[in-house]
Amino acid sequence: MSRPLRGDGQERLVVGRHPVRELLRARRPVLMVRVADSRDPDPVVDEILSLAQDARVRVERVPREELDRQAPDLVHQGVVATAPPFPYSDLVGALAVAERADEPALLVCLDGITDPHNLGAIARSAEAVGAHALLVPGRRSASVTPVAEKAAAGALAHLRVVPIGNLVRTLQRLSSDHGVWSVGLDGDAPGPIGASRLLTESLVVVVGAEGAGLARLTREACDELVALPMRGRVGSLNASVAAGVALYAVRTARDAHGPAED
Amino acid sequence: MSRPLRGDGQERLVVGRHPVRELLRARRPVLMVRVADSRDPDPVVDEILSLAQDARVRVERVPREELDRQAPDLVHQGVVATAPPFPYSDLVGALAVAERADEPALLVCLDGITDPHNLGAIARSAEAVGAHALLVPGRRSASVTPVAEKAAAGALAHLRVVPIGNLVRTLQRLSSDHGVWSVGLDGDAPGPIGASRLLTESLVVVVGAEGAGLARLTREACDELVALPMRGRVGSLNASVAAGVALYAVRTARDAHGPAED
Repeated sequence: MSRPLRGDGQERLVVGRHPVRELLRARRPVLMVRVADSRDPDPVVDEILSLAQDARVRVERVPREELDRQAPDLVHQGVVATAPPFPYSDLVGALAVAERADEPALLVCLDGITDPHNLGAIARSAEAVGAHALLVPGRRSASVTPVAEKAAAGALAHLRVVPIGNLVRTLQRLSSDHGVWSVGLDGDAPGPIGASRLLTESLVVVVGAEGAGLARLTREACDELVALPMRGRVGSLNASVAAGVALYAVRTARDAHGPAED
Repeated sequence: MSRPLRGDGQERLVVGRHPVRELLRARRPVLMVRVADSRDPDPVVDEILSLAQDARVRVERVPREELDRQAPDLVHQGVVATAPPFPYSDLVGALAVAERADEPALLVCLDGITDPHNLGAIARSAEAVGAHALLVPGRRSASVTPVAEKAAAGALAHLRVVPIGNLVRTLQRLSSDHGVWSVGLDGDAPGPIGASRLLTESLVVVVGAEGAGLARLTREACDELVALPMRGRVGSLNASVAAGVALYAVRTARDAHGPAED
């Protein structure tokens, strides 16, 4: 399925109303926007057309079936953009952004999350709480695909995504070189996330896959393991819900602790 | 798609390892369990076989292709159960459970959530925080389908689900007859959820659909509207993530306020 989505490898597809609108709002480079020629009035699509005109991006009106062919198996909502390959960021640059803003860094790191829907939903939560970057390992991990960009509903146009090689070494380097505390979400951890005194410091939140959780080596490499409190009998959350709850716990702790930044 | 899943209307399918295991753990009635005859060793399936034996539930080993036919388009993981129709609960009974436990009620109400994946993920979060029931309108709403039970990962075997007729009248009745405060999640609300003094009182959290949010009449019927704080530029969360974050805000407020119940 990935082949028809990627064009010739020099460009990527971005599909759906919100992902395309946010790409344009973020002034990311866009090669072309195609919209279905028959559509109901829609303020989001109107804004896309206006932003594309301002940015001098070519717009084509095509039959909806043409978009179905271009983006098979994706809910394109009548809007498909082509853009250069996803602009991944680097770790040092992401940390520099936090430093310039005079904020403690907030990073999110995936461990074994292979479903691009989950990557997208976690990216959306990370962006919503103002995280500085999403760290994505090269192995055993989803990457930024059209499905992920769709699930992120535009958040991936604004959030830095940093590909990392070895997760354990990355956590070690974050700690030793940059003073970033690593907190792993682990259902079996003794401490609840709210009890960590370090939510207000520079932090990387490490999120494992549903079911399997964090890899053993990842667990051992984290400075601290925390759990979300569970009252029910099942005792687990959807991976992207767990990540969202944890990130909001960090956001809430920071808002209560530091001076308001808004 | 729903026809082949529902058998003859007198029974339902429950598919996947966790949903079937939780059904048996919760001692809900099960007519039959079918497992794929070729499978890797798996402690969850072993537990299912043991629980089924204890409950004298018939177990059949069948070719995996037979399960593919029985549960098309569903990730059955080699386990499919048939069970009586989903046992919906009633509102007064759910409130009585909270009263007997001497806890303020915590209910979750869906408004316009039509995707059974979202219903399932929200049910999972509701069960995880110890909510007493999930309220599901008869109109413009997903119901408990095999997809929803799969997405809930077993939580729907433990959580009460209450079908409601008119949502507005239900909120009014909850308020006037039972003293239950209704809090709607609304991105445009002035107050953040953490600022509600009423998170520790009997509460129904009303969750709208992604994009559309709460219906106008629902918004007007809520006693209070609250927003999740947003720092990013996109300003929205996945519906089930938003529900999970809100429910954890309630859980955290209650844990900090009341005597520990564990």
